[in-house]
Amino acid sequence: MILILKQGVPPERVNAICAELKEKFGVNTHPSTGATETLIGLIGDTSAIEISVVEMFDDVARAIRVSEPYKRANRAFHPGDTRIDFGNGVVLGGPRVIVCAGPCSVESDGQICGIAAGVRAAGAAMLRGGAFKPRTSPYAFQGLKDDGLKFLKNANRQTGLPVVSEITNPSQVELFNDYVDVFQIGARNMQNFELLKHVGMGKKPVLLKRGFANSIEELLMSAEHIMSGGNPNVILCERGIRTFETSTRNTLDISAVPVLKKKSHLPVVVDPSHAGGEAWLVEPLSKAAIAAGADGLLIEVHNDPKKALSDGKQSLNPSEFAALMEKLKPVALALGREI
Amino acid sequence: MILILKQGVPPERVNAICAELKEKFGVNTHPSTGATETLIGLIGDTSAIEISVVEMFDDVARAIRVSEPYKRANRAFHPGDTRIDFGNGVVLGGPRVIVCAGPCSVESDGQICGIAAGVRAAGAAMLRGGAFKPRTSPYAFQGLKDDGLKFLKNANRQTGLPVVSEITNPSQVELFNDYVDVFQIGARNMQNFELLKHVGMGKKPVLLKRGFANSIEELLMSAEHIMSGGNPNVILCERGIRTFETSTRNTLDISAVPVLKKKSHLPVVVDPSHAGGEAWLVEPLSKAAIAAGADGLLIEVHNDPKKALSDGKQSLNPSEFAALMEKLKPVALALGREI
Amino acid sequence: MILILKQGVPPERVNAICAELKEKFGVNTHPSTGATETLIGLIGDTSAIEISVVEMFDDVARAIRVSEPYKRANRAFHPGDTRIDFGNGVVLGGPRVIVCAGPCSVESDGQICGIAAGVRAAGAAMLRGGAFKPRTSPYAFQGLKDDGLKFLKNANRQTGLPVVSEITNPSQVELFNDYVDVFQIGARNMQNFELLKHVGMGKKPVLLKRGFANSIEELLMSAEHIMSGGNPNVILCERGIRTFETSTRNTLDISAVPVLKKKSHLPVVVDPSHAGGEAWLVEPLSKAAIAAGADGLLIEVHNDPKKALSDGKQSLNPSEFAALMEKLKPVALALGREI
Amino acid sequence: MILILKQGVPPERVNAICAELKEKFGVNTHPSTGATETLIGLIGDTSAIEISVVEMFDDVARAIRVSEPYKRANRAFHPGDTRIDFGNGVVLGGPRVIVCAGPCSVESDGQICGIAAGVRAAGAAMLRGGAFKPRTSPYAFQGLKDDGLKFLKNANRQTGLPVVSEITNPSQVELFNDYVDVFQIGARNMQNFELLKHVGMGKKPVLLKRGFANSIEELLMSAEHIMSGGNPNVILCERGIRTFETSTRNTLDISAVPVLKKKSHLPVVVDPSHAGGEAWLVEPLSKAAIAAGADGLLIEVHNDPKKALSDGKQSLNPSEFAALMEKLKPVALALGREI
Repeated sequence: MILILKQGVPPERVNAICAELKEKFGVNTHPSTGATETLIGLIGDTSAIEISVVEMFDDVARAIRVSEPYKRANRAFHPGDTRIDFGNGVVLGGPRVIVCAGPCSVESDGQICGIAAGVRAAGAAMLRGGAFKPRTSPYAFQGLKDDGLKFLKNANRQTGLPVVSEITNPSQVELFNDYVDVFQIGARNMQNFELLKHVGMGKKPVLLKRGFANSIEELLMSAEHIMSGGNPNVILCERGIRTFETSTRNTLDISAVPVLKKKSHLPVVVDPSHAGGEAWLVEPLSKAAIAAGADGLLIEVHNDPKKALSDGKQSLNPSEFAALMEKLKPVALALGREI
Repeated sequence: MILILKQGVPPERVNAICAELKEKFGVNTHPSTGATETLIGLIGDTSAIEISVVEMFDDVARAIRVSEPYKRANRAFHPGDTRIDFGNGVVLGGPRVIVCAGPCSVESDGQICGIAAGVRAAGAAMLRGGAFKPRTSPYAFQGLKDDGLKFLKNANRQTGLPVVSEITNPSQVELFNDYVDVFQIGARNMQNFELLKHVGMGKKPVLLKRGFANSIEELLMSAEHIMSGGNPNVILCERGIRTFETSTRNTLDISAVPVLKKKSHLPVVVDPSHAGGEAWLVEPLSKAAIAAGADGLLIEVHNDPKKALSDGKQSLNPSEFAALMEKLKPVALALGREI
Repeated sequence: MILILKQGVPPERVNAICAELKEKFGVNTHPSTGATETLIGLIGDTSAIEISVVEMFDDVARAIRVSEPYKRANRAFHPGDTRIDFGNGVVLGGPRVIVCAGPCSVESDGQICGIAAGVRAAGAAMLRGGAFKPRTSPYAFQGLKDDGLKFLKNANRQTGLPVVSEITNPSQVELFNDYVDVFQIGARNMQNFELLKHVGMGKKPVLLKRGFANSIEELLMSAEHIMSGGNPNVILCERGIRTFETSTRNTLDISAVPVLKKKSHLPVVVDPSHAGGEAWLVEPLSKAAIAAGADGLLIEVHNDPKKALSDGKQSLNPSEFAALMEKLKPVALALGREI
Repeated sequence: MILILKQGVPPERVNAICAELKEKFGVNTHPSTGATETLIGLIGDTSAIEISVVEMFDDVARAIRVSEPYKRANRAFHPGDTRIDFGNGVVLGGPRVIVCAGPCSVESDGQICGIAAGVRAAGAAMLRGGAFKPRTSPYAFQGLKDDGLKFLKNANRQTGLPVVSEITNPSQVELFNDYVDVFQIGARNMQNFELLKHVGMGKKPVLLKRGFANSIEELLMSAEHIMSGGNPNVILCERGIRTFETSTRNTLDISAVPVLKKKSHLPVVVDPSHAGGEAWLVEPLSKAAIAAGADGLLIEVHNDPKKALSDGKQSLNPSEFAALMEKLKPVALALGREI
């Protein structure tokens, strides 16, 4: 971090500011005084220093961060890709593009087990399904809750597919531990720091969805919350952001894929179903995600989208999903990956 | 709700769709067939029916909501203003503009009690202060937690000012019940539905901040979550939204004030400190908020903004706050209100 | 401007960079080398230096602008408020809040003259009306063009109200010179630099509307385009920006008023009609604009909004306008202004 | 278009509204009255009818457009892809992905001719270069103007590459006709309707860049402006939109590619250089664009990006461009296209 002082600050004030910085934050300081400007470089771990706090110091005009405010999620300190190994060749963050498929909501035991068998046959490597559903309306279907988790576990037993499901309350951690392989943090909870703290205390992988109005840096800071609790297994998910454009449900920020891969070593997956909000958009957005370097895809598949209790418009049926997988293969190959 | 059917749907299918709607949602249906179009009007409570679900029905081209998807928060069903009475003349939602002041973070017992005395003397009607602080960085100051709440309670005992503080975990409800007068739901938790559900089970007023990328309708739906749990005492707070403009911390959506007052009977307050992000902007934005019809203001006041552990840039000191209150009086009077 | 060099740049390279800066941009340079960082302060007029250009220099890590990239529009170099005097007590930028009213489109001679008489009687100081209408659809009403200007001139002759109308093509400058008192640059043309250049060659005041996705700094840079051509008479207009919120036509950025007044000496007006997009919102937004410090208002008034050829939903009729003016008076007075 | 009337409108008023619609807009009307609602279907060409105008009619509650407001750009009325043939196998809108490369600004004859030779050798099919540069700052480099066009023409003569350059003033049409093969309308001029009208009067292809805050529908309406003047040769360009995210210059709206291809028959190209704003992002965004179905790419190539007079940060040098082309080939092939 570099502080630019106001013009004309006398040397004794520069020294006093340096002393205050050292005492408050434990950093070393290196002042440089030119003809018109004095600046102070801070050496050491500045990730806990807030710009807005040091800019309030007397005589400080401006503070500029030259290193990112996150460490554990930062590729600079962990150059190799993080890989999360689920066994049976399912490794997220490696050469294989991992496709995780399943319905928005688990609706019954038969439904989820049927979908699981279908998507596994088509090449999906993981199963997703919602049991606790955060819904904008209190009057909408809120999910099967505990039963939904049990049905997911059945589907996992029958197919071997690792299971992802969304957790919504810190008190659910123990329950989810028994049933799922990956905790999903939904977009609306990306900055629910209590929830992040609690999933950060274990080791189960956490699929962290980007909030629809959160910046890439904020996503990485939320990953840092989880990792600073001791859990290094974070999966970043781009799922579209909120913009003025209304012809798609959200605006898929495709650039987030290469930017996240550059800034962080964590695996990056894309959810084309929520981003586009329409079944027909899943194919072009999935291809684009692979082309941009995504490590995986989250795709909504429902046995009968017309009767889905939620998000039917953006869901594929199992045979559409199988057709999609065939179309994604040559794209993955062209990028030097498999799927 | 009105469904527009695809062209050329035969009468027997129209009847079948009507039967399905009645069975699934318990609504009465009124089909109208013209020369080119058939539409079905749904009569009854349609708030639990999702557009995206009925648009997936075979032969349905489009569904249009003609009434809002919220009921309890809706002025149509509750024409009079909701007033929340804290005693001692502090009534939110009535003619007096209620100013709630205090620091971003409670930092010590002496600090909060001193600020409380100062802001009360200047005309504040309520005290605000954060004890559990949701922070973007896991390395930033996270608040004094339980101690912060105790210090707030002391300040309340000494000054009589009702106290507002932010709750961040459903498990804190009992703790907060003992110490605060109003539960604050922060912007990042506006769609943390588990938290909404838990504060909706009691009767303590809830100050619900608009998420920085949430629409006005979503804010009202989150109020509906709380109210549908049984708690009618919701206070809506506009605190700025995220846009492309970077010269202010957020963009204060001043239009949200009259729009919320028209759509809902709930009291509406404005937080000019977070919206603008700069101390000098608090005065013009406070005046604008009163002029637009706000029932109250949330203003950050710190004993020594230069040394604040958070948000110092946007905080006033107690004497600046007193000066502000003097300037707001004539504006409130010109609008036929007091402050 | 300050350049921060990459670490470990040898002194001879620092000198070479300084020489290159001096030669290319005619600025003096003041390098400062500390223990870990070297920076170069640039002294002189840096407004023509682009950040992105100097950041491409070898060995430069980052460039930071410490002064704004605009000069003529900058309050730092012109502390006093710019006032534009139209005669008859109509001075924009002074204590009186100037209300400019009139229809979206001039529809006939009788219409505009009738509206002009009505709004003058109610206290409007200026008349607005569109003759050349930029429309999203090529099939929508495009305005009366030359005839519209003539009718505006008639209205001006009959009432004495100075007239504002939108210019859309550089070739129209001469024509407009004969008919209008203020050239309006519409939001969609805020960065039509050819148009800015041409209105900047004369002295007629220019009402420059902020583009709906342009930042405050970009608005001031467009003002600078006009002023650098020799025309100092620029009026800045906030008319709402494009965000994700759909309950209003645009989102009025009320903070832009105090921010523009602080950064620039130019008068600032607000268009509550376009910002809100609904007639009932004009009153609260007008009050908020005055409270925030606006120097004037642009209000759409149509003789019969139900039959307007454009923007009827956001137009007041003359008697609604008269009622509005009565309600704005006490607000202006409370702020120490008249209207 | 369907109008939903207010409840309880008597039959004679329904008839009167139908008569008014027929007279004003020349459309046939089909009213349908159910138990609770009456609606009127409008049959015929409704593209000139504005929602906001008919919603102002007495007794009309709401108007809903069921067909798009554009015709000439609409795939519904022109199912086959529009192909623009420049000769020598350069056909935009066909199986070959057309890459158009060149510098942001033409800086000299030698520069542009050298770049043209380089990019042609690497497989570019077209040449781009700016001669009239719209710049945010009046103090920045504004382009070589007429000389720039002449140098572009030389490069075209030497390489045979068709040339694209940006036009900024309706008065330049004749000049550009002599020198360029494609008129580019820049993002800031997408709704400069005077300019659209003038380029719509000829037959030269027009590359229409999406404004950074314009919706997909607005882009198609601007294409409609050009086409309604008689010029069917419009090329649509996605170049990133303005959002809250700051880690990229703009946010590439990758979904716009399939959405535009579905709604319109016009060719769609992507500008990854402006979207990302960084040279290293060009590769992943180009791959994603091809994967999403783009018909072409616009890529900034400069002989020496470090010395570019504008946009150096996002420019590739010719050898980087050649390497990029090699990497794009297998992606195009995997999609069944060539490049």
